[in-house]
Amino acid sequence: MPAPITSGEEHGSISMATKTNTKAKQNRADTERRLIDSALDLIQRNGVLAGLNLREVADGAGVNRGNIYHYFGSRRELLRAAITHRFDAVVKSLIAKRRGVPFVDRRLQTFLETDKIQDSQLRALLVVDGDKTVDPIPRHEAMLSALRQDVIDGDIDRTHDLEALNVALVALRRGYSIFRRPLAARINTNVKDLDERVATILRTWLEAMAKPPAS
Amino acid sequence: MPAPITSGEEHGSISMATKTNTKAKQNRADTERRLIDSALDLIQRNGVLAGLNLREVADGAGVNRGNIYHYFGSRRELLRAAITHRFDAVVKSLIAKRRGVPFVDRRLQTFLETDKIQDSQLRALLVVDGDKTVDPIPRHEAMLSALRQDVIDGDIDRTHDLEALNVALVALRRGYSIFRRPLAARINTNVKDLDERVATILRTWLEAMAKPPAS
Repeated sequence: MPAPITSGEEHGSISMATKTNTKAKQNRADTERRLIDSALDLIQRNGVLAGLNLREVADGAGVNRGNIYHYFGSRRELLRAAITHRFDAVVKSLIAKRRGVPFVDRRLQTFLETDKIQDSQLRALLVVDGDKTVDPIPRHEAMLSALRQDVIDGDIDRTHDLEALNVALVALRRGYSIFRRPLAARINTNVKDLDERVATILRTWLEAMAKPPAS
Repeated sequence: MPAPITSGEEHGSISMATKTNTKAKQNRADTERRLIDSALDLIQRNGVLAGLNLREVADGAGVNRGNIYHYFGSRRELLRAAITHRFDAVVKSLIAKRRGVPFVDRRLQTFLETDKIQDSQLRALLVVDGDKTVDPIPRHEAMLSALRQDVIDGDIDRTHDLEALNVALVALRRGYSIFRRPLAARINTNVKDLDERVATILRTWLEAMAKPPAS
């Protein structure tokens, strides 16, 4: 991430060092960004079963092959950086938009906007690769406190298990996100039509949370 | 799959050919099985980001390296065979068990028994690899006719979109299956506990289908 440039420090010998330091950081961030883009492009074009070739990633990014390990020590690390990068790029604006939106509409928005992040396939790839550190719900705590507010607002009955609810909603969203295209093809429709139809089912499920469990 | 051996044909010159043919088929099925087991074992041990090495798959199965293309023309084909193999091995007995079980309990069983098939990670891997032919719901038609019966039985209101309902349930099941371990770790519990807690949420959702959509 590039360091913020503060104009007040731009004089004297210390500021020169700071400037050089800032530029070095930006260069590093640029190179990392190019390596991430190159890796995602290679996965898109060649798939993953043949393996992600770090030399090809470096070539695609115009980076010296020997230097790639200076930036990313392993394929997993590179993929984790790609996920974080994709996630950070959009998640803040999406969160801001959803603040204060009531439960049903908020979680419907989350479901429908998941296509903007597209991190689920990459997270699944890390899971299949055996990575034990994959975080399937980066914002779990924040989502949970929003759900607690939904209970106070009367949109979720207080007897429901909020953690399990969040897990179920995230599992649905990620499963749908991973298989979205093959699912639409399977029932002979397009993804936008399927998005809306599944969202209608999800609305029924979300609205059902206002009442206590029937049995 | 080995051809059935029928004792009535076991005499004369034709039966000799049949026997040889049957044996050849069994040998082929055995070899394919060994190659599938070897591939799944390699993925388990080494992950996928470094690539699935077909020579290593052959070595692990005790098959001549040159012969692997005689059995599977590509990594994808091998993986598809692995999925079919896993799926066929258990799905028939699971289906028989669920026949005649009412909607809510039947789909809860499907959710809870998904761990016995474990095909979701492999199907996700094919999707990420760019395979356009992945079938995310192999039994969609049969599941749909069971849902139509559930409408007749009064367990699902007739205004709901049954195809979208099936897609949503499959997406939830596959998403949960892929991320089950990291999800449990994320909320500091074990997978069995999380299975039950998510199944409780799912029960509320399934029971909500008996009524028409609220809005």
